[in-house]
Amino acid sequence: MLRTHTCGELRQENVGQTVTLTGWVQRTRDKGGIFWVDLRDRYGITQLTLEEGVEAEAQRELVRTLGREYVVQVTGNVAERYSKNDKMPTGDIEIRVEKLEVLNPAKLPPFLIEDETDGGDDLRMKYRYLDLRRNTVRNNLMLRHRVAQATRRFLDGQQFIEVETPVLIKSTPEGARDFVVPSRMNPGEFYALPQSPQTFKQLLMVSGFDRYFQIVKCFRDEDLRADRQPEFTQIDCEMSFVEQEDILNTFEELVRYLFKEVKGIELQDFPRMTYADAMRRYGNDKPDTRFAMEFVELNDIVKGQNFPVFDNAGLVAGINAINCAVYTRKQLDELTEFVKRPQIGATGLVYARVEADGNVKSSVDKFYSQEELQKWKAAFNANPGDLLLILAGEPNKTRKALSELRLEMGQRLGLRDKDSFSTLWVVDFPLLEYNEEEGRYFAMHHPFTSPKPEDVPLLDSPDTIGEVRANAYDMVINGVEVGGGSIRIHDRGVQARMFELLGFSDEEAKAQFGFLLDAFEYGAPPHGGIAFGFDRLCSLFGGADSIRDFIAFPKNNSGRDVMIDSPSPISEVQLKELSIKTAVVQK
Amino acid sequence: MLRTHTCGELRQENVGQTVTLTGWVQRTRDKGGIFWVDLRDRYGITQLTLEEGVEAEAQRELVRTLGREYVVQVTGNVAERYSKNDKMPTGDIEIRVEKLEVLNPAKLPPFLIEDETDGGDDLRMKYRYLDLRRNTVRNNLMLRHRVAQATRRFLDGQQFIEVETPVLIKSTPEGARDFVVPSRMNPGEFYALPQSPQTFKQLLMVSGFDRYFQIVKCFRDEDLRADRQPEFTQIDCEMSFVEQEDILNTFEELVRYLFKEVKGIELQDFPRMTYADAMRRYGNDKPDTRFAMEFVELNDIVKGQNFPVFDNAGLVAGINAINCAVYTRKQLDELTEFVKRPQIGATGLVYARVEADGNVKSSVDKFYSQEELQKWKAAFNANPGDLLLILAGEPNKTRKALSELRLEMGQRLGLRDKDSFSTLWVVDFPLLEYNEEEGRYFAMHHPFTSPKPEDVPLLDSPDTIGEVRANAYDMVINGVEVGGGSIRIHDRGVQARMFELLGFSDEEAKAQFGFLLDAFEYGAPPHGGIAFGFDRLCSLFGGADSIRDFIAFPKNNSGRDVMIDSPSPISEVQLKELSIKTAVVQK
Repeated sequence: MLRTHTCGELRQENVGQTVTLTGWVQRTRDKGGIFWVDLRDRYGITQLTLEEGVEAEAQRELVRTLGREYVVQVTGNVAERYSKNDKMPTGDIEIRVEKLEVLNPAKLPPFLIEDETDGGDDLRMKYRYLDLRRNTVRNNLMLRHRVAQATRRFLDGQQFIEVETPVLIKSTPEGARDFVVPSRMNPGEFYALPQSPQTFKQLLMVSGFDRYFQIVKCFRDEDLRADRQPEFTQIDCEMSFVEQEDILNTFEELVRYLFKEVKGIELQDFPRMTYADAMRRYGNDKPDTRFAMEFVELNDIVKGQNFPVFDNAGLVAGINAINCAVYTRKQLDELTEFVKRPQIGATGLVYARVEADGNVKSSVDKFYSQEELQKWKAAFNANPGDLLLILAGEPNKTRKALSELRLEMGQRLGLRDKDSFSTLWVVDFPLLEYNEEEGRYFAMHHPFTSPKPEDVPLLDSPDTIGEVRANAYDMVINGVEVGGGSIRIHDRGVQARMFELLGFSDEEAKAQFGFLLDAFEYGAPPHGGIAFGFDRLCSLFGGADSIRDFIAFPKNNSGRDVMIDSPSPISEVQLKELSIKTAVVQK
Repeated sequence: MLRTHTCGELRQENVGQTVTLTGWVQRTRDKGGIFWVDLRDRYGITQLTLEEGVEAEAQRELVRTLGREYVVQVTGNVAERYSKNDKMPTGDIEIRVEKLEVLNPAKLPPFLIEDETDGGDDLRMKYRYLDLRRNTVRNNLMLRHRVAQATRRFLDGQQFIEVETPVLIKSTPEGARDFVVPSRMNPGEFYALPQSPQTFKQLLMVSGFDRYFQIVKCFRDEDLRADRQPEFTQIDCEMSFVEQEDILNTFEELVRYLFKEVKGIELQDFPRMTYADAMRRYGNDKPDTRFAMEFVELNDIVKGQNFPVFDNAGLVAGINAINCAVYTRKQLDELTEFVKRPQIGATGLVYARVEADGNVKSSVDKFYSQEELQKWKAAFNANPGDLLLILAGEPNKTRKALSELRLEMGQRLGLRDKDSFSTLWVVDFPLLEYNEEEGRYFAMHHPFTSPKPEDVPLLDSPDTIGEVRANAYDMVINGVEVGGGSIRIHDRGVQARMFELLGFSDEEAKAQFGFLLDAFEYGAPPHGGIAFGFDRLCSLFGGADSIRDFIAFPKNNSGRDVMIDSPSPISEVQLKELSIKTAVVQK
């Protein structure tokens, strides 16, 4: 090795040793004839010192030429510092430089390599290799490594086997858009990149693998948002001979293990909440349960008082913002603007303050007497100083808007602490969702999810088909869906029926999923599984909102890697070999 | 869980317990009023028993209907067997069936689910999910899991961080053919799938990650051979601030650890052999050193005796097949045919037997006196009973052919035992290889490999450029190249010079690898690494020649997955969204 120690390991007890370090120049200082260099590597920072009249002039001359981010090798003696720095692990010592060599010089980086950098997003992405030098970003990726290692350790201990499933698979019409790969050897034909290894993991259950997992790249060619990437990573798992509770218990244990191992946090048991309850109480299938502020439904109380907005609404519901009666008119106007944003979609906000004397003062006082308003207060279980925020309209839209308002209030009130974790399972999702545009049902989870046995008869009538619940579940932490899964169909007849409900002809079902239907005829065990969004899980562990800084080389919102400048045109020779032509529409 | 125990865990001490098992019916037997069912899962086989007059008639009726591979759940009492089977871990007990339920029936499988199956390759691939039920295949994949887990454990312990590099990258002209992925959001542009994460891992070194690894899928669109797959897995590693010996020592330790953990074998230290030596002694840059049979060069001895074949040859060399003088004329004719095969390419085989009296009898006695032949014997250090096999011709071709003959003889003589392991490092590979067809040099390893510093001056003359040695190394076990790597270039100028030598214009180099050249200007540390062929390594551990049965869902030699029928045509809508057209040439 070009070093005897890293920049993070020397301590008081090493004083007197001759050592060789390598690393990057973080900064240099010189004062009163003394030169200091902070030398950095992944493991820490060590201070190098050269003093006039003590260390050789030639070395000091060289140190004068060092710029930020130069790569150097230094040999010297470990000395106790005059003034120790108890903020850094190596703060007791310094290296008195005997020999210093520049291994590679560096141009001045386009932004500061510091925890707080002056680089904008675009610049940081272009020079991602420099951005990755920053402690904050590198620590995210080291965290990711630790989470992956701990995941594998836990699952291996539970007799799960990691099996690699193929990346070059087959395009399927259901779900998101596929990325495809033209086949040179099979002209006119294409592979697709997997959106998930779903069918393969089910086949592994048919094969008797019993417990499978894989930390695996998946691909979706969707329009990108800030927290989506065209390639992302899942912890993908499947078990045989299980019922829903077995899966919930197993993977609750996994996540509890990860929190303990990686963050030193003991999580409580995960409560189970039905989808219907989650929607009713929080207007959201992934409620942030770090704080209560549950919905209060007011239809029975507020209707019939000649306030048309409430009288004509399918649902009137609100939340109690405790101690927020002090909100100014300006703050309330802000909230009104917030709920009226197009993406939230409420038409207005009704509010009511509970005053010190217990009286309620509302924005709709001309429709409601104090006596009526006292009923509101009681419904919300509100106290003097509380602020009631009420929305009205079509039930689903109102719940969605109120959910956003609840989250906004939680944020404003500091109730969404990144260091506190509230977990739950949301269960009993609907099996199917009706898509108005396409005029047909889609699988809410995916076409392989089993209906609850007691709901199967409801599949037979178009009137009740939307009510069928699935053996499907999501794990939710702090309002983030970190994982989701289901008990799968393992019966050929039920699976064929499901394809039919989703609008597949017999022929299409066979062409796309014939191998799975066949497999179910050769002894398929009952099975189910789950997949965790690994990027999202890591960002949750890291207390960040975006997944981007937990991915070493992410793509931007146009799906571009601006560092390597990809995607890019390919040569005519390549196109010809692949039997394809580009058909770019001229703009 | 639908079971209380697996089919592999019940023992004598469980006798008397009521248990529930699930699994597949391996076989049923009935004799003298007793029914037996062998119930199988991943963990083992347990015998179920029903006796006339003891177990209920209804259960026995049901058992009569069970076919092979039916999935059943059974509850019963653990009983001691009348006749124990010490060949199976559960052989002391049986389950007296109280309740049996068919969870899923099964059609008769198209081939036997046994260690020795009657299914041909094509059938096994089409029904891969059934093939994977066979112990032999499943054990291979469980071995693969254990090797992967152990690899991660070792590297994590050595402070390597696993970082996921992108799968959607950029097509590069150097190396094998890329698989490409059309970008919908960037019409006319394409991503490429990585042939290896080479540039990304180097960027991670520039970022100061210091020690990186990844078990990662890689892709090469090459014409396939039996042991090649379009997607394959590498253990990809890189380290900073190292010299070649540091890498050899680190990864020798990794492989020693894997052998110890997975196979319980303690490997010796890995000898180092130069490429030049390997070619001279074995005619092969990945010699199988389980047996000696080294080449003996005979130019000095055999020339000038008016035997034109030898006189005109650039190289006359042979091997000593110990104790093979007993080979019959027929066997020797077979060997002659073997070396004359087009893929081996020798024009003939000269042989000489050392007889019991010490005399040598050769196939070219008319050209060589006994006195001359005694010199041969001495050169080979041969003893009575030995057989000398000699080839002659152009040196490189002769070495290649003799290497094949040596391996063939090793095989015939049982010297290539799958349970014995002989390891070495081959070092000092040539930096560049001349390609006659294209009339230019190619990087033997890849364009990022550094030349040996002492050979750098040789780069300046076309006469000596082919002699430049690289800081490159391969790990070879039993004649298989399991891994290879190099110390990389970390200097912008040297890297630019290398691209120039490989025929890149300045512009091309910048367009393809500008990000790497840039990165080298911002403080790149000295670094190097290695990549192991993970599929190959697993097949070596499993004692198999082909990698195919160590991959869960492999593709055939046309790159097809015959189970899912992929690749396949995609819809016009998909093609249009991707701005491409197919251009299939009609045949």
